[in-house]
Amino acid sequence: MDGAQANREDALSAIVVLLRDDMEAVNRLIVRHMDSPVALIPQLAAHIVAAGGKRLRPLLTLAAARLCGYPAGGERHVALATCVEFIHTATLLHDDVVDESALRRGRASANALFGNKPSVLVGDFLFARAFELMVGDGSLEVLRILSAASATIAEGEVLQLMTQNDTSTTEAQYLEVIHGKTAALFAAATRVGAVLQERPAAEEEALDTYGRTLGVAFQLVDDALDYAADEAVLGKTVGDDFREGKITLPVLLAFERGDEAERGFWRRTLEERDQTDEDLAEAQRLIARHGTLAETFARARDYGRQAKEALGGFPDSAEKRAMIGLVDYCIERAR
Amino acid sequence: MDGAQANREDALSAIVVLLRDDMEAVNRLIVRHMDSPVALIPQLAAHIVAAGGKRLRPLLTLAAARLCGYPAGGERHVALATCVEFIHTATLLHDDVVDESALRRGRASANALFGNKPSVLVGDFLFARAFELMVGDGSLEVLRILSAASATIAEGEVLQLMTQNDTSTTEAQYLEVIHGKTAALFAAATRVGAVLQERPAAEEEALDTYGRTLGVAFQLVDDALDYAADEAVLGKTVGDDFREGKITLPVLLAFERGDEAERGFWRRTLEERDQTDEDLAEAQRLIARHGTLAETFARARDYGRQAKEALGGFPDSAEKRAMIGLVDYCIERAR
Repeated sequence: MDGAQANREDALSAIVVLLRDDMEAVNRLIVRHMDSPVALIPQLAAHIVAAGGKRLRPLLTLAAARLCGYPAGGERHVALATCVEFIHTATLLHDDVVDESALRRGRASANALFGNKPSVLVGDFLFARAFELMVGDGSLEVLRILSAASATIAEGEVLQLMTQNDTSTTEAQYLEVIHGKTAALFAAATRVGAVLQERPAAEEEALDTYGRTLGVAFQLVDDALDYAADEAVLGKTVGDDFREGKITLPVLLAFERGDEAERGFWRRTLEERDQTDEDLAEAQRLIARHGTLAETFARARDYGRQAKEALGGFPDSAEKRAMIGLVDYCIERAR
Repeated sequence: MDGAQANREDALSAIVVLLRDDMEAVNRLIVRHMDSPVALIPQLAAHIVAAGGKRLRPLLTLAAARLCGYPAGGERHVALATCVEFIHTATLLHDDVVDESALRRGRASANALFGNKPSVLVGDFLFARAFELMVGDGSLEVLRILSAASATIAEGEVLQLMTQNDTSTTEAQYLEVIHGKTAALFAAATRVGAVLQERPAAEEEALDTYGRTLGVAFQLVDDALDYAADEAVLGKTVGDDFREGKITLPVLLAFERGDEAERGFWRRTLEERDQTDEDLAEAQRLIARHGTLAETFARARDYGRQAKEALGGFPDSAEKRAMIGLVDYCIERAR
């Protein structure tokens, strides 16, 4: 482990250590509420839950609630963090069906292992369970925030589908896609933390901004890593976006700045999806020539800076420092 | 139109006439809330909404609310009827993906026309919108009923998937499937009508029973028609269940009562899905031999009788008569 990597791990572990008990309670609640007499449901749900991931979104709910003064050892923030993770897991299951993904976090995806049909239906089940949990909590405001976020996520996913394989996609459309598919749930996850403690609207807005800008930064990094990362580190297949013809920022900028021959390359590979084994390397070369990977990371850092600034009004605390560290982690991860 | 058919149309038209203004308000709300700046969403949603169907489930919500004294011209029952229809439409979109259906109500299904991917995502969008509408209404009790029903629907669909192509499926499992995939939403649709008027628990239970037993009757008839009906009348391909290897009551009973040769036929066609063009006719012949279509209709009539009985405690009214007529319509439709 080099020094930079150690720092990144520290940034994540600070928030993980701080929220360990709460996160363990979340994990217990996840297992309990994904249960069903219909055996395939917990089987499939366990597969995707066991695959783990870093549980960033429930961490955000827990951290935001604690930042707003919600007591450690309370139960409501744990329930809402579980809702957020269920909504996220449902969208992952449906995404993998839509993207025809074979891998998720380095393991066989649920659709590859169980088939598309149960993935669609178990996604629906988890989504419904998330709402049942929210009803149990009883806050209409939380229900409002998370149902609106769920509709926005679906809109972002549909827009992504419409812009796929279309090299005329604009930067504005790309940003709308990632605001919908990623940032909306990050924003909702942090906002509900403030709602729990009935904090003033300004604090709610600040946490919404933190989550939203962090979400955009996270997705920008994700989209950059798909052209940059070491497959073993990323835990997903590199070049997925390229093969599917997803129009992400590194590509979008390289297309804009490319000459006619380069645009022809992008049209052939992304629009017509006529690709050879060497094309991913050529795509990476063109992206490097125009510096658009570096620019995507720079934009991510800028959104990260906005996320940190959004916390400016909160007094110093372990939670605040952990949330700032989390921004660095999201931006520097796996590079 | 023969006399029996005229009577059936009367049974449906009584409730349609009674609730015409309310249903027009529902249709307006459907169009308004399925809108989105992401153009593909209203396009796809309009396709399935335009396909129509009889809007049985929102009719149930409107009728139950009015039966409980909710005023004609009110707005809450219209909003909740719209939620119910959105949840139903979302499950239809996902069902067609899961079943790989080419037709829905006699027209090309959304997945056949637009592809599976947008069908999954627009289903998610409509589901989220349903919850946004419920939050707008503001009743946690309604949210509780419809989120629980949504989870139960998904469980029923997964169980159906697990029993598909399995001739050892029991009658109890079959009933669990149709309770989940159909009756749960019928029950919730009627129950929320009573909740709106804060009626005593006994009335809520009575309306739940009416909806649940009507839902079971409806699905029994649907499953019988798949082996009996005239394709043009049914508006869906006859023999769909047979081709997909769904284990429905007419088949399940014919399998139980069949000799070894017949069981061999069912195993080959439903389990191994090794079918020739003549097999559907043979399946219909075996079903006729054992009288299991007639028995399925008889069971449906019995559930229909229970549905009517459940309304026994309500005083006579146009709404009550219309709801009783609706039971006859659901049982006698398209025969």
